[in-house]
Amino acid sequence: MSDEIFMREAVALARSNVARGGRPFGAVLVRDGQIVARAVNRTHETNDPTAHAEIEAIRQASSTLGTPRLDGSTIYASGHPCPMCLAAMHLTGVKAAFFAYSNEDGEAFGLSTARVYAEMAREPQAQSLPLRRLRPAGEAGLYEEWTRKRG
Amino acid sequence: MSDEIFMREAVALARSNVARGGRPFGAVLVRDGQIVARAVNRTHETNDPTAHAEIEAIRQASSTLGTPRLDGSTIYASGHPCPMCLAAMHLTGVKAAFFAYSNEDGEAFGLSTARVYAEMAREPQAQSLPLRRLRPAGEAGLYEEWTRKRG
Repeated sequence: MSDEIFMREAVALARSNVARGGRPFGAVLVRDGQIVARAVNRTHETNDPTAHAEIEAIRQASSTLGTPRLDGSTIYASGHPCPMCLAAMHLTGVKAAFFAYSNEDGEAFGLSTARVYAEMAREPQAQSLPLRRLRPAGEAGLYEEWTRKRG
Repeated sequence: MSDEIFMREAVALARSNVARGGRPFGAVLVRDGQIVARAVNRTHETNDPTAHAEIEAIRQASSTLGTPRLDGSTIYASGHPCPMCLAAMHLTGVKAAFFAYSNEDGEAFGLSTARVYAEMAREPQAQSLPLRRLRPAGEAGLYEEWTRKRG
């Protein structure tokens, strides 16, 4: 079954990353039955906190395909995608995702993002990270300017 | 008031990006009253759908500071952060965020991510992007291996 084959590859990527001192996360992005991108979490090398395996796979696939749209793709991730990665999938048209290890599996190892999901499920004003509107006096028209520029 | 000064800079970055053919989004990341990173949406140059201004600011700040943790930082974004960017803020310890243009402001221009927020607020099984567990037969121990490797 091809889903399982792709997932085995994602987990193998995660294991190879662990062997190189990285975090235990790998992902493959598949379109039309073909692997378009293989990636691992690279935060240990780069300090980039956004370099999750799924984000890296999306970046690679976009570069390879020459478009920010990945409609119809499927992502196989070794671990449950965090909300940053899940949102990136929604934004790019990824149609489905699978994971092998759950947030419950990761909890004892500090590898769950359930807490972040719970925060983001709260009303904006109740989240630990306040997100507030601040429109400077006199500021207006930014989006209209962009629309005009696009022509 | 410094919040407004930082926001004016974020909006100026967005405008400069529009002038260069990019999307109308800019962000600055501030820590201890100092701007650590200034960024714009770079998707038009790179095809990278994750190159939102806030993500780019987080990447830059992490690189500059040499750590994936940005605890205590504040982000000033010209537009309402999308859920990918908001999750990245939660993950890195950003303590607060401001935006000048709301999703409502962006709606008529195709610049709102309210739809993605609404999707992600649904139960996982009800989202347009199914997220499912698939553990290959015999697969086990990935997170334990990482813990042992870390020593």
